[in-house]
Amino acid sequence: MNMMIKAYKRKLDVANGRIDLSHGAGGRAMGQLIEGIFHKAFDNDWLRAGNDQSAFSVPGGRMVMTTDGYVVSPLFFPGGNIGTLAVHGTINDIAMAGAVPLYLSASFIIEEGFPLVDLERIADSMGAASREAGVPIITGDTKVVERGKADGVFISTAGIGMAPDGLDLRSDAARPGDAVIISGSIGDHGVAVMSKRENLEFDTDIVSDSAALHGLVADMVAAGGAHIRLMRDPTRGGIAATLNEIASQSRVGFRIDEEAIPMKPEVAAACEFLGLDPLNVANEGKLVAVVAPEGADAVLAAIHAHPLGAEAALIGHVVADDNYFVQMVTSFGGGRIVDWLSGEQLPRIC
Amino acid sequence: MNMMIKAYKRKLDVANGRIDLSHGAGGRAMGQLIEGIFHKAFDNDWLRAGNDQSAFSVPGGRMVMTTDGYVVSPLFFPGGNIGTLAVHGTINDIAMAGAVPLYLSASFIIEEGFPLVDLERIADSMGAASREAGVPIITGDTKVVERGKADGVFISTAGIGMAPDGLDLRSDAARPGDAVIISGSIGDHGVAVMSKRENLEFDTDIVSDSAALHGLVADMVAAGGAHIRLMRDPTRGGIAATLNEIASQSRVGFRIDEEAIPMKPEVAAACEFLGLDPLNVANEGKLVAVVAPEGADAVLAAIHAHPLGAEAALIGHVVADDNYFVQMVTSFGGGRIVDWLSGEQLPRIC
Repeated sequence: MNMMIKAYKRKLDVANGRIDLSHGAGGRAMGQLIEGIFHKAFDNDWLRAGNDQSAFSVPGGRMVMTTDGYVVSPLFFPGGNIGTLAVHGTINDIAMAGAVPLYLSASFIIEEGFPLVDLERIADSMGAASREAGVPIITGDTKVVERGKADGVFISTAGIGMAPDGLDLRSDAARPGDAVIISGSIGDHGVAVMSKRENLEFDTDIVSDSAALHGLVADMVAAGGAHIRLMRDPTRGGIAATLNEIASQSRVGFRIDEEAIPMKPEVAAACEFLGLDPLNVANEGKLVAVVAPEGADAVLAAIHAHPLGAEAALIGHVVADDNYFVQMVTSFGGGRIVDWLSGEQLPRIC
Repeated sequence: MNMMIKAYKRKLDVANGRIDLSHGAGGRAMGQLIEGIFHKAFDNDWLRAGNDQSAFSVPGGRMVMTTDGYVVSPLFFPGGNIGTLAVHGTINDIAMAGAVPLYLSASFIIEEGFPLVDLERIADSMGAASREAGVPIITGDTKVVERGKADGVFISTAGIGMAPDGLDLRSDAARPGDAVIISGSIGDHGVAVMSKRENLEFDTDIVSDSAALHGLVADMVAAGGAHIRLMRDPTRGGIAATLNEIASQSRVGFRIDEEAIPMKPEVAAACEFLGLDPLNVANEGKLVAVVAPEGADAVLAAIHAHPLGAEAALIGHVVADDNYFVQMVTSFGGGRIVDWLSGEQLPRIC
């Protein structure tokens, strides 16, 4: 009896404590961890109810669901951390369908020995990002694995949202003549993460562009929803992968103008230093929109008017091409084919 | 050009291949992996559409959402593997709210070097489990981390479902006098997994009870929905953790009769051998239901009539107790307090 009462009183020592296997064992230590870090950070009644699932009401209609795993290394980088990335990335995958994100879930897989203070910092910034976006994290799970069986913490988030009536964005909807718009400068996220990587650290002022894009998307849909064919956030693999995916799914080609692609000089310099093609470098707060020609001006104007879209640009067009090639007109007037990577260039960038 | 064409033709060698970092890099190798293993195994049009999210229509009403991470070790055990566990566990978390599971998502975090043939086996059995349950996996994500930074594969699944009108099961709804029913024998999953653990292997015929419980729940709701206060699946921490959680959330106590708890003799023997209290051992195909006294017979009869509930039993009652204690009347006629574990007993059991 005495031991039990003592166990009730053992406090979670966030400042000095570390994750141990008991934090994943379904007992009292896990309850303390969840309450002391996650419930406090995410701060909503769904979590406090303490069920293994959370309930909410929806009007009837079209919904979307998405999931993403996050394994970014290092966990903290200029402009964000694995937690903010998870919140923004999952919201963005919902927003790319033109949908309004409603709720998120979060599954944490944590390595034994991980400092509680780092976990709290990640959870607190996830909570802040989710509140800022207005998309609460309503359900979650925590697992712990032995030291050396994970790498700090991995997070998998899932999200659901409601799609407006009549808006059906599809990856096979691009048509020759459509405009290709990017909402801002490329490569910021990848360069920011690489700049903090062990054995690679270099000086740069670049911070990750990690941001939730659903507000921007809402403005775009309001301005020209009927003309938007599809949207994608060019994360892993960069805009090269995104354009190649759309090309093969829509059975079209792209002609892109290198000079029109917005890029910060520091990103260009870092990519040269690292030997990376910025077209392959991940973005976490940008979108590529393919828009019917008659709607391009209105959609681009709506993006420009949004704080996250000031540097947006029309970077090229969809063309008919039986090879589904992404062609780029280079700054020197020449041309090249932009392939997606067949191998690995930037592991664990998100 | 030549290299690109060759890259297009590189086949996924499932029989001999292993995961490398390119399978998580967002390029062509990842596309091949997803198509060659996951799309084939999960086999539905949502995934084949190739979007970062999937869309579906719902009638208006109350929905539930849940998520779980799976880190079970070993990955394959008698009666299932990490993939079937993920499908069943997430379906069960939805079902415990009395809801009808609709859709699942799956996020894979895979260690470099993991055999493709094992990944295919896991994916194929997940696909089979999801089809058998009628709950498709409609969206997913794949990440790869370096050798030594994970342990084979981790899976995080999320799920959503629709809750029937008027059924609002809550963890604080247990009332003194309510009946406590368990749907079958306890401890099978934990013992099955432990029996295959390195340095611990022992002979047993016990297989995991891993199963999707939504069909059983539907029968229970039809038979006595208005009388069901709440349901829980006693996974990590076993029925000891489940009853203690309910006790503290509902601010009640429990009085449980040890003799009434169904348990296979092999499970009892293995627990004695391993020094485990079977009340703490995980179950993955059982539920605990707290039912108003006037509905207990009807609900128990409905469970008994279902293939997954043949061994169901009424194991005790809710009592008023300001200490929220779970008391057990032992086989010898004595009594003891069943505490939840303050430390770790069975790491990575799910």
